[in-house]
Amino acid sequence: MTLRIKGIAASNGIAIAKAFRLENPHFTIDKKSITDAAAEISRLDAALEQSKTELTAIKDRAYAELGADKGAIFEAHLLVLNDPELVNPVKDKVTSENVNAEFALNEVANMFIGLFESMDNEYMKERAADIRDVTKRVLAHLLGISFSNPSTITEEVVIIAEDLTPSDTAQLNRKYAKGFTTDIGGRTSHSAIMARSMEIPAVVGTKTVMKDIQNGDMVIVDGLDGEIIVNPTAEELRSYEEKKEQYEAQKTEWAKLKNEKTLTADGHEVELVANIGTPNDVKGVIDNGGEGVGLYRTEFLYMGRDNLPTEEEQFNAYKTVLERMAGKPVVVRTLDIGGDKELPYLHLPKEMNPFLGYRAIRLCLDEQDIFRTQLRALLRASVYGNLKIMFPMIATVDEFRQAKAVLLEEKAKLVSAGVSVSDSIEVGMMVEIPASAVLADVFAKEVDFFSIGTNDLIQYTMAADRMNEQVAYLYQPYNPSILRLVKMVIDAANKEGKWAGMCGEMAGDSLAIPLLIGLGLHEFSMSATSILPARSQIRKLSRAQMEDMAQKALNMATAEEVVALVKSI
Amino acid sequence: MTLRIKGIAASNGIAIAKAFRLENPHFTIDKKSITDAAAEISRLDAALEQSKTELTAIKDRAYAELGADKGAIFEAHLLVLNDPELVNPVKDKVTSENVNAEFALNEVANMFIGLFESMDNEYMKERAADIRDVTKRVLAHLLGISFSNPSTITEEVVIIAEDLTPSDTAQLNRKYAKGFTTDIGGRTSHSAIMARSMEIPAVVGTKTVMKDIQNGDMVIVDGLDGEIIVNPTAEELRSYEEKKEQYEAQKTEWAKLKNEKTLTADGHEVELVANIGTPNDVKGVIDNGGEGVGLYRTEFLYMGRDNLPTEEEQFNAYKTVLERMAGKPVVVRTLDIGGDKELPYLHLPKEMNPFLGYRAIRLCLDEQDIFRTQLRALLRASVYGNLKIMFPMIATVDEFRQAKAVLLEEKAKLVSAGVSVSDSIEVGMMVEIPASAVLADVFAKEVDFFSIGTNDLIQYTMAADRMNEQVAYLYQPYNPSILRLVKMVIDAANKEGKWAGMCGEMAGDSLAIPLLIGLGLHEFSMSATSILPARSQIRKLSRAQMEDMAQKALNMATAEEVVALVKSI
Repeated sequence: MTLRIKGIAASNGIAIAKAFRLENPHFTIDKKSITDAAAEISRLDAALEQSKTELTAIKDRAYAELGADKGAIFEAHLLVLNDPELVNPVKDKVTSENVNAEFALNEVANMFIGLFESMDNEYMKERAADIRDVTKRVLAHLLGISFSNPSTITEEVVIIAEDLTPSDTAQLNRKYAKGFTTDIGGRTSHSAIMARSMEIPAVVGTKTVMKDIQNGDMVIVDGLDGEIIVNPTAEELRSYEEKKEQYEAQKTEWAKLKNEKTLTADGHEVELVANIGTPNDVKGVIDNGGEGVGLYRTEFLYMGRDNLPTEEEQFNAYKTVLERMAGKPVVVRTLDIGGDKELPYLHLPKEMNPFLGYRAIRLCLDEQDIFRTQLRALLRASVYGNLKIMFPMIATVDEFRQAKAVLLEEKAKLVSAGVSVSDSIEVGMMVEIPASAVLADVFAKEVDFFSIGTNDLIQYTMAADRMNEQVAYLYQPYNPSILRLVKMVIDAANKEGKWAGMCGEMAGDSLAIPLLIGLGLHEFSMSATSILPARSQIRKLSRAQMEDMAQKALNMATAEEVVALVKSI
Repeated sequence: MTLRIKGIAASNGIAIAKAFRLENPHFTIDKKSITDAAAEISRLDAALEQSKTELTAIKDRAYAELGADKGAIFEAHLLVLNDPELVNPVKDKVTSENVNAEFALNEVANMFIGLFESMDNEYMKERAADIRDVTKRVLAHLLGISFSNPSTITEEVVIIAEDLTPSDTAQLNRKYAKGFTTDIGGRTSHSAIMARSMEIPAVVGTKTVMKDIQNGDMVIVDGLDGEIIVNPTAEELRSYEEKKEQYEAQKTEWAKLKNEKTLTADGHEVELVANIGTPNDVKGVIDNGGEGVGLYRTEFLYMGRDNLPTEEEQFNAYKTVLERMAGKPVVVRTLDIGGDKELPYLHLPKEMNPFLGYRAIRLCLDEQDIFRTQLRALLRASVYGNLKIMFPMIATVDEFRQAKAVLLEEKAKLVSAGVSVSDSIEVGMMVEIPASAVLADVFAKEVDFFSIGTNDLIQYTMAADRMNEQVAYLYQPYNPSILRLVKMVIDAANKEGKWAGMCGEMAGDSLAIPLLIGLGLHEFSMSATSILPARSQIRKLSRAQMEDMAQKALNMATAEEVVALVKSI
C-alpha cells in the first residue's frame, strides 16, 4: 500500500527512484584508562589531521561547484577543528584523567553542543550542528569506523536519512542522487540551502522517513508540495511522472527566457540581477540569465583566514568578477562585518545586542585602514567593468558623506599616482535601517542609487531579531509598514532621477514580486536560480494592475490582509 | 590661587562650602591558611547578614525618600548578596583551599568584576559597579574596618570623592551635604541620577578632585556649567553667590507655576505629566505640579522578589496611585519585562539580541496568566480614579487587537461576577517600534491614545543599542527621521480625534520641547523635577513660531542642523 509522508518542501522538483538509506555510523564510545597520554594525543592529532585533509577537499569542491556561501560552511568546520577552545580541553582531559581520546573528545564536544543548543537561537544551534558534524568525522577516524560517503553511490537513488550534514550534502553526486528526504531540518537548514543550490529535489523535517522507508522501496520526492510517496501505485507513479514533466517543461520555458529582457505584460522593464559571494558564483549568474550582480557580498574575502586580505587579493577578486560580467553592472557592497558575522582576528568586543551594534560602515569609518584598503582595490578594479559601490548600514546622511569622502580621497590619491580609475562609478547605499528609509528623500539628493536590504530593514522596523524563533511571527515582509518604507525609498529615488533596487530575500519571493512591481521597484537582486522563474512571473503581470493592488496593500492593517490580497489576483 | 577643574554637569545648582574628602577605606587583604573552614564560613555568613541588614535599611530609606528607581538599585545590591553564583564559589574556595573568607571573597568578586567590565557595555559595567559596592561593605565587616558613613557629617560641606557608590549617595544628608564632586562617573551613572533626584548640585568625571582638593579647602560646585572652583577669590565667591541666587530665584519662579495650566505664549494648552515607578513617587508628582501620571512603570512591582506579585498586591498599588492622584489621569503601562530588564524567576531564555527579543507585550500575549492577573488588578482599581491602560512594544495591529480583546474578556468576567469596573478607561499603546509609527494612521482608528517611547523608538529607528558606547553617536533624538516619525504619530492621532503623548527622555529635554510644541504634541511625560522648568519654558514659546521651525527641521539632513536651528531661536 502506498504510504504518504508530509514534510517541508526544501528544494523544488520531483525525484522518482529507489530508496538508499544513509545510516549514521553507530559509535560506541567506552571510557578506557590509558597509560601513555602522549601516544593518545598523537593518535588524536592524526585523526584531526585526516579530518582536516578530508574537509579541505570537501571545502574546495563546495567552493568550485556550489558557490561561496556553501564553501564558507566548511571554512567554519575547519575553524572548529582548529579551535584551541575545543581541542585543548580534550588534550587536557586525556592527560589529567588518563582517558582515551574518543571519550575525552566526545565529552568535551557534547558539553559544547549542549551549551549551544540550550540557547534559544538559530545561529547558536547551527554552531552546535557544526560541532556535531565535525566531531563525528574525527570520532570515526579514532575508532577506525568507515565513514558513510554518499559519493560512492553509483546508481540513481533517493537518499533517506535522519539528517544530512553539510558535508554529506556537498558529497552527493547529482548524477546519482536524484533527491533526498530527512527526518529533521527546516527550509533554512544548511542541507536545504545546499539542495536548492544543487537543484536536487528535497523534502525535510518528515520526522518518520527513517522508520518507514527501507532500502529498495520505490520513493517519490515531491519537492514542490513537500510530500514523500513510498511504493506508489502504477497510477500514482504515472501522475507524478506527469507532474515531473510539467515541472521540467516549466524549467525549459524558463531557460528560453535566459537572454530576454524582463518586461511586464504592459511593457515596463525592470532589471533582474543576482546576489553573489565570490568570483566563482559569476557562472551561475550568467547561466541563469542574470542582467548583472545586484549584491556582491565581499565578506567572504575576509572569512576563514587569520588576517585581513591584502589590497592585491581583493583587487584580483573584484577584477575577476567585473571581467567575467563583461560590462554588465556589478554592485559591490563594502565590508559588512559584525552583527552575526564575526572575524575572530579583528577581536571585536562582545556586545549585548550585536544586531544593534558596531558593524559594517560603523566599523569601517572607525577602522579606516581596513576600509581604505578595500576602496583602493575597488577603484583599481573599476576600469575592468561596470562597477557600482554600495555602503552597508547607513543610518545618517553624515555617515554616507564621510564614506563617500574617504572614497573620493583614495580616488584622488590613485589618480595623482597615475593609476587608472573609472570616472563613471556609481556610489550608492543599502537602505536597511528605518531612519534611512524615512529620510530617503534627503539621501536621494546625495546617492546615485539605493538598494533595499529587507532582511535587516524588517528586523529593525519590527524590532524583532530575525534569528530568534520566539519572535519569528514578527518577521513580516508583507506588513504594510514595510511596504510603506519600500515605497518611500522608491518614490525618493524617482523624484531625483536615481534608481532603487532590492537585495533582501523579499526581492526573489514570488509573493512579493507583484507588490514590488506595483511599487515601481527598478532592480531585483536575488539568488541566481530564482531569476528565470521571476522573469517568467513578471512577464505575466500588468504593472498598472499591480499599482492598484499595491495602493490597496499600503492602506491595509495587517500582513495577513496583504497576503490574501496578493493571492486573490 | 584659584584652581578651576572641569567636569560633567550632573545635577543643577550651585553649592559653596568647605571640602570634605570621603576616603575609600583601604583594605589589605592577605591570604591566610585556616584550619576550621566551618568557622570561617560562619564568619562570612555573619558579615553577609550584617551587610544585608544595612542595605535593607538603605533600600527602605531610598524607596521612601528617593523614589522607586533609586530603591531598585538596592534591590539589585541585595540580589548580589543573595546570589548563590557569587556566594557559593566563595564558600567552596574557603573549604577546598583552606583560605580565609576575605581572600576568597576578594578573589571571586574580582573575577566577576573583571568579567563584567571587559564587556564593552554600559549595563554590564553597572553590574560590575554593583558587585564592587557590595563586596566593599562585606569586606569591611570581615576586616572589622569601620565603613565611612556620609550620614555622620554634621556641618555644611561639599563631598569630594573618587566615586560615590549608590549606597554612599543614598546616605547623604541633604541638610549638610550641599554638593558633591567625583573623579569618575558620567551623567547617567547611578550617583548622578540620585543627585538630580535629591536636588544636590554635582559635578562628576573631573578626574583630579581627589588629587587637587584637601579637607577644608573652600569649594564651589557649579552643577549648571560643570565646573569646580577651589579656593576662589573674594570676587569669584561673590560672582558665584550671585549665580546661585539667580538659580534659586528661577526655582522660586518655577514654584509659582505649580498650580498653573501649561499654555504657550499664544495660548495653546498642553499637558505636563510625570513618569513614576511606585505609589511613593506620587508625592513628587503633586509637589512638582504634575497634571497627571503619563507613565506608571509597573515593572517595579515584579522586581526584587522571588515570584510574581499577586492580583491583590497589584490592585493595592494601582488603587493607591489612582486615589492619591485624585481624579487626575494615570496612564499605566502593562508589564514591560525582557530586553535589559530581567525577572530571574521567569527563567526566560538567553537571547542573542535581547532588545529585539521576547519582551513586553510579546511575552504577555504568550504568558497570558501573568497578563490577565495584571489586567484584573487594573480593572478592579479603575473605579478609584482616572485610569488609562497602555500596552508596550506594540509592533502590529494584530497584537493591539489581541491585547485589547484579553482586556475586554477580563472586564466582562469581572462585570458578570458583580465587580465594579469603570466604563471610561482609555486603552492606548506605546509607539516605540518604527513599524507602529509608520502605520500610526491605521492604529489611530483602534486606539484611544498614543504615547511615544523615544528611548526605544530611537534605538530601533537608528539600529543602535542605546547602551552600547561604540554606537552612542547614533542615538540621535534630533535626527530628522525621528522627528518625522513623531509627526506621523501626532498627525494620525489628530486626524482621528485621539491624543498623542511622549514618555521617553526626549519629552523633558529643553532642546526638544520647542520642536515637540511645533509638531503639536499633546502630552509630555517626564521626571517630576523637570515639570516646572518645562512649564516655564513652554509659557515663553509661541506655537505658531515653533510650527514654522519644526517644519524646517523635518526637511533638514542631519541632527546637527536641527540642533543648530533650535539653538538659533
